[in-house]
Amino acid sequence: MRACVLTQEGLSVASVPDPQPAANHVVVAVRTAGLNRRDHWITVGKYPGVQLPVVLGSDGCGVMEAEGHALDGQRVVIDPSMSWDATTDTQGSDYQILGMPLQGTLAERIAVPAGNVHAAPRHCSDAEAAALPLAGITAWRATAKRAAVRSGQHVLVTGIGGGVATFAVQIAKAMGCKVWVTSSKTANLERAAQVLGTDGGALYTEADWAKQIQSQAGHIDAVIDGAGGPGFNNCLGIVRPGGTIAVYGATAGAVPTMNLHRVFWKHITIAGSTMGSPQDMADWLAFVNDHQIRPVVDSEYMLSNTAQAFARLASSEQFGNIIVRIAE
Amino acid sequence: MRACVLTQEGLSVASVPDPQPAANHVVVAVRTAGLNRRDHWITVGKYPGVQLPVVLGSDGCGVMEAEGHALDGQRVVIDPSMSWDATTDTQGSDYQILGMPLQGTLAERIAVPAGNVHAAPRHCSDAEAAALPLAGITAWRATAKRAAVRSGQHVLVTGIGGGVATFAVQIAKAMGCKVWVTSSKTANLERAAQVLGTDGGALYTEADWAKQIQSQAGHIDAVIDGAGGPGFNNCLGIVRPGGTIAVYGATAGAVPTMNLHRVFWKHITIAGSTMGSPQDMADWLAFVNDHQIRPVVDSEYMLSNTAQAFARLASSEQFGNIIVRIAE
Repeated sequence: MRACVLTQEGLSVASVPDPQPAANHVVVAVRTAGLNRRDHWITVGKYPGVQLPVVLGSDGCGVMEAEGHALDGQRVVIDPSMSWDATTDTQGSDYQILGMPLQGTLAERIAVPAGNVHAAPRHCSDAEAAALPLAGITAWRATAKRAAVRSGQHVLVTGIGGGVATFAVQIAKAMGCKVWVTSSKTANLERAAQVLGTDGGALYTEADWAKQIQSQAGHIDAVIDGAGGPGFNNCLGIVRPGGTIAVYGATAGAVPTMNLHRVFWKHITIAGSTMGSPQDMADWLAFVNDHQIRPVVDSEYMLSNTAQAFARLASSEQFGNIIVRIAE
Repeated sequence: MRACVLTQEGLSVASVPDPQPAANHVVVAVRTAGLNRRDHWITVGKYPGVQLPVVLGSDGCGVMEAEGHALDGQRVVIDPSMSWDATTDTQGSDYQILGMPLQGTLAERIAVPAGNVHAAPRHCSDAEAAALPLAGITAWRATAKRAAVRSGQHVLVTGIGGGVATFAVQIAKAMGCKVWVTSSKTANLERAAQVLGTDGGALYTEADWAKQIQSQAGHIDAVIDGAGGPGFNNCLGIVRPGGTIAVYGATAGAVPTMNLHRVFWKHITIAGSTMGSPQDMADWLAFVNDHQIRPVVDSEYMLSNTAQAFARLASSEQFGNIIVRIAE
């Protein structure tokens, strides 16, 4: 089969052996794959424990090929999480994500545990459905479960444009929240208002961004943050007493001189979160169906042009999800 | 009446006018007052908005003087929190604590809102009862409500010796947890084991203290921390995936270069907390009665020797609570 393979020499589309499904595994004929920031980190060697060669890709939509399975012949999406620990409700000690070291979705076929396959929402296109799993489950757990946002709340989502942030806005809006966003680009703030219906925003490149958000929103009940870094102290400042900050990443790094006084004096809850459990995936897809959520697709590329898709990913210019079409 | 008054010249025992109870206030004839770290910060001018002169003291046990009140003539303890905000479940915008600027408990009489007065637990001496409110409510909210520890869990309480930490250990032990502690003094670790039944400990002055705790405890489900500072990253390292760190103070200051990656990767919850609501106070006293909790009294001083009590407080040598006897 054809697949996008990462070797020491870089990315290329090559012919690789078909996957042989292990016990309790099923095969999916992939139609579309979604890229994530993780794929970028792996290609530039900044992800822990990179093993080469590897077929990348954590997200995929395709057609199930498993005789006798209830979803045989149907369109499905794949939960990329393997070995979630039900006891601690976190990644297990042998936790893995599809697409390194396990074979990923940038291939014509993939074998995955039968329990990781779910019916694709009917209202989503192949491209939209491929965007749902990794960023969606991360946004769902951070927003709905860890920050536990609810109708009527004021929510701040930092760094709009990325896949998780975009889903976080969609989830909060669907729940009946008012949502503010930050970005380094005016175009992203405008697009968020047009496409996602955000209620306002600010450029985090401006020193007083937190004041701008505060004056627009009045108060912020919850922050969904994937940046960390120096801006995190602004998040501690802007969230109301008793509010919550869900943290799903730290692209801006550690927090220099974190103001812990604010944390206890304001009774702030900081809730760390990454990926999600099988239950989170099921809950997320149910929410997608209930609220007819349609992922924002930034751009689509053919498998033969995967290198261009990765260039787009590396640019951080995208708004929403980058999709690669496997079946042409 | 006699009272301990702080002026620009320092602490002294002086004669001051009797308090005149406002509407819905009651008078308590104070028998014993408890000191807290807050009192020290005020005397050294390191508490925000110090107003002088003032009668210090947030904690007290005494006899109610309010005809017609159900507790008239009975021994009571006083909740020092004024104007808790029920909506956010945090301090209200006009929040105050007894003992600056409001008159405190280091006086023969004090007038407080009737709702802030509770029956003193019968199994506690006057000295023990005076220790219950401020440190107890802080420890209760941080441990039982914010960290939500439960039977069988492994709990780390940092900085044993202080009033809040001592109560946090007592609460966790009474709930059926195993409890480890840290201190800068070997004597405190030994005393904690003897008096509080802790299951182990380590000197936080030793670079590998977190490893020592880890090897003793196997895992830590929850940390109760009032220190912050550089040691906070060790708390993030030691707590298990999915665990919680309740933060009730930051005596060691801000966290330099806080490792936010650990927070999201391990799904850690950091729960800020300070003081507690009227409901927390009621719940705490019920727990004290149910489990026959007896506060650890470090030392007792007569009102005329209050300066010595403050010297003991400033030394940070105490283990448990420092008590001043008002009625001789």
